[in-house]
Amino acid sequence: MSAGCVIGVDLGGTKLLAGVVEPDLEVRHRVFRLAREGRGSEELLEQLVAAVQEVRVAAGRELLAVGFGIPSLVDVRTGVAATTVHLPLRDVPFRDVMAERLGVPVVVDNDANAAMTAEHWVGAAKGTTTAALLTLGTGIGGGIVVDGQVVRGACGGAGEWGHMVIESDGPLCTCGNRGCLEQLVSGSALGRAARKAADELPDSGFGRARRAGREITGALATELAHDGDPVARDVVASMGHYLGIGLANVVNVINPEVIVVGGGVIAAGELLLAPARRVVAERALAPSRDQVRIVPTRFGDASGMVGAALLAMDAVGMGPA
Amino acid sequence: MSAGCVIGVDLGGTKLLAGVVEPDLEVRHRVFRLAREGRGSEELLEQLVAAVQEVRVAAGRELLAVGFGIPSLVDVRTGVAATTVHLPLRDVPFRDVMAERLGVPVVVDNDANAAMTAEHWVGAAKGTTTAALLTLGTGIGGGIVVDGQVVRGACGGAGEWGHMVIESDGPLCTCGNRGCLEQLVSGSALGRAARKAADELPDSGFGRARRAGREITGALATELAHDGDPVARDVVASMGHYLGIGLANVVNVINPEVIVVGGGVIAAGELLLAPARRVVAERALAPSRDQVRIVPTRFGDASGMVGAALLAMDAVGMGPA
Repeated sequence: MSAGCVIGVDLGGTKLLAGVVEPDLEVRHRVFRLAREGRGSEELLEQLVAAVQEVRVAAGRELLAVGFGIPSLVDVRTGVAATTVHLPLRDVPFRDVMAERLGVPVVVDNDANAAMTAEHWVGAAKGTTTAALLTLGTGIGGGIVVDGQVVRGACGGAGEWGHMVIESDGPLCTCGNRGCLEQLVSGSALGRAARKAADELPDSGFGRARRAGREITGALATELAHDGDPVARDVVASMGHYLGIGLANVVNVINPEVIVVGGGVIAAGELLLAPARRVVAERALAPSRDQVRIVPTRFGDASGMVGAALLAMDAVGMGPA
Repeated sequence: MSAGCVIGVDLGGTKLLAGVVEPDLEVRHRVFRLAREGRGSEELLEQLVAAVQEVRVAAGRELLAVGFGIPSLVDVRTGVAATTVHLPLRDVPFRDVMAERLGVPVVVDNDANAAMTAEHWVGAAKGTTTAALLTLGTGIGGGIVVDGQVVRGACGGAGEWGHMVIESDGPLCTCGNRGCLEQLVSGSALGRAARKAADELPDSGFGRARRAGREITGALATELAHDGDPVARDVVASMGHYLGIGLANVVNVINPEVIVVGGGVIAAGELLLAPARRVVAERALAPSRDQVRIVPTRFGDASGMVGAALLAMDAVGMGPA
C-alpha cells in the first residue's frame, strides 16, 4: 500500500465528497463538506484544495493525479468550466488552476459525466451500449452513453436531463427555463414538498419533526418514508411519479438498455423507483419501455467521486483492477 | 440514363411519397398518394407495391433496389416493423415481404432515421458530428446523430422527440402518453388549432375559408399565414412557441450543432422557426443554445424519400455523386 494513489472529488451544488479510490474501487479517507452559503469562486476553489490536501495527508502516499467532477458544462479539452447553474465557476480555467495549486495532474469533467463513467465502466451500466444516468441531488446531473461512449455534444452540454421541460408553464428554474425536471424531481424539490406537507399537515411526521426542532429536508423525507410514515411515503412516491414522466422521455429519446438513478435522493430506493417504473411502463413507447432496466447506481451517491478518480487513473495510465 | 436506378419511398401517417432518386440527388417520377382511411396492413402493403411499380414503369430502367422509410420502430437487422403508432404495421416483416413482392433488394428504416440520413449525408446537417432532426407531419418523426452516426438505441426506438412529454398532464396522445410534443406541434395539431380558430373567430380567414367550403387543415393555416392573415400567423407562431420548448429540450439533452426541421409543416418556414428560435434562446442552457443552428431540411418534406433511396444505394454499393 505504498504505491501512489489518485483522489476523486465530486463537487455538488451544496456539498463536496472526496476520497482516495483504489484500483479495486475501494474508497478510503473519505471527506465530506457542506458548501458555505454565498461563497465566491475563490473561496470555493480554496475549499476544494483544502479537501484534497486533507485526503492526501490522511493517505500518506504519493498522489499521482486528482479527478474532479463539477456541476458545470466542461470543455474537457481545456478543462474550463464554461457555465454552471448552481456554482460560481463560470469561465474558470478549473483544470489548470487546480493542477497549479495541487502540483499534480488534474482531470476535470462534468460531475454527471464522471458518475456516468463510473457506472458505465464498472457499475450498474457496465456492458451496455446505450445508457442514461440521472443523479438526483441539489439539481439533476445527467449522462448519456451511446455506442459505448459518453455523449458530450457540440460543446460539452449533452445529457442535461434535469433541464428537460416536462411542464411548459411550470415553476421557474434556476436556469431561467420553466418546468424543468429538476424543479419537480431533486433533493431540493423533495425538501420543498416535505416543508409543504409540514405546513399543511401539522400532525404528520413532518409536522412532529418540525416541532422537535428538526430541519425539514429531502433527507428527512427519505428517512421518514423508510420508517413507514404514510405522508412521507406519499411525498416520495409523488416525486417518483414525476421521475417516471422524465424517464419515459429518456426512454423515448435515446432508447437505453438501462437508466441508472443516483445522487443523494436515491437513498429512497424502491420507494422512489417503483412508482417511476410504473409510469414508464404506462407512458413510454413499446418495445423500448419493456426492455429498459431502471436501477440505482452501484456507488450510491459516490458515483461522481469514483468516476472522477477513474478518469484520473485513466489519465495517468493506471486502470482500475 | 439507361443505368439502373433506385427508388425511395417515404411512408407517412397519412400519405406516401415515392420517386427515383438519382446519384446527383435529383428526384424523378415522383408519386404522391394519400392514405385510404381505415386500411389494414395488407391494403397498405398493396398500395406501397403499386406506388413503386408506377414509378418503376415511368422510369423504364432497371430497378436495383428500393428503400423505404416507415413511421415505425424498425429492427434494421431483420427489417421488421416492431411497433407503430399511426399505421397497421405492427410485427410485419416489412423488408422480406416487400423484397419478395418487388423482386429486388429492399432496405427499410424508420422514416425519420431515413430523413436524418439524407440531411446528415448530403443535406442541412452535412459535416456535423452531433445533430437532431424533427419532421413535423401527421405526428413528429425524430432522428439523432452522435459521433457522426444515426443513433438507434437498444431496439431502434431512439429519437422519438415527438413522444417527449412537455405537458405532464397535457392532451392524451395516440401513443397512450399525455402532453407529448406531437400533440402540440405537428400537422395534425396545426389543423386542430386552425379549426378552433375557425369556430371562435368566424370573421377570420379560417372562418371565411370554411364558409367557402374549404377544409380547414394545417396546410391551409400555412397558406393563409404566408398570405399575411393575422390569425393564421398567430396560430403558426403559437405552434412555433411550443416547438421552441421542444427544441430547447433537444438542445439540453444532446447539445447538437444543428437541429433540422422538416415534414409538411416546415412549409411555414420562418413563420414557424423564428418564434421557435426565440424560445430556444430564452429557455435552453448557455452556451449550447448560442451554438445551435435551427434550420429547415434541405429536401423540404422529401428528406425521408431521399434518405430511403440513399440507404438503398448504400446497400447495393452505389453511393451518391
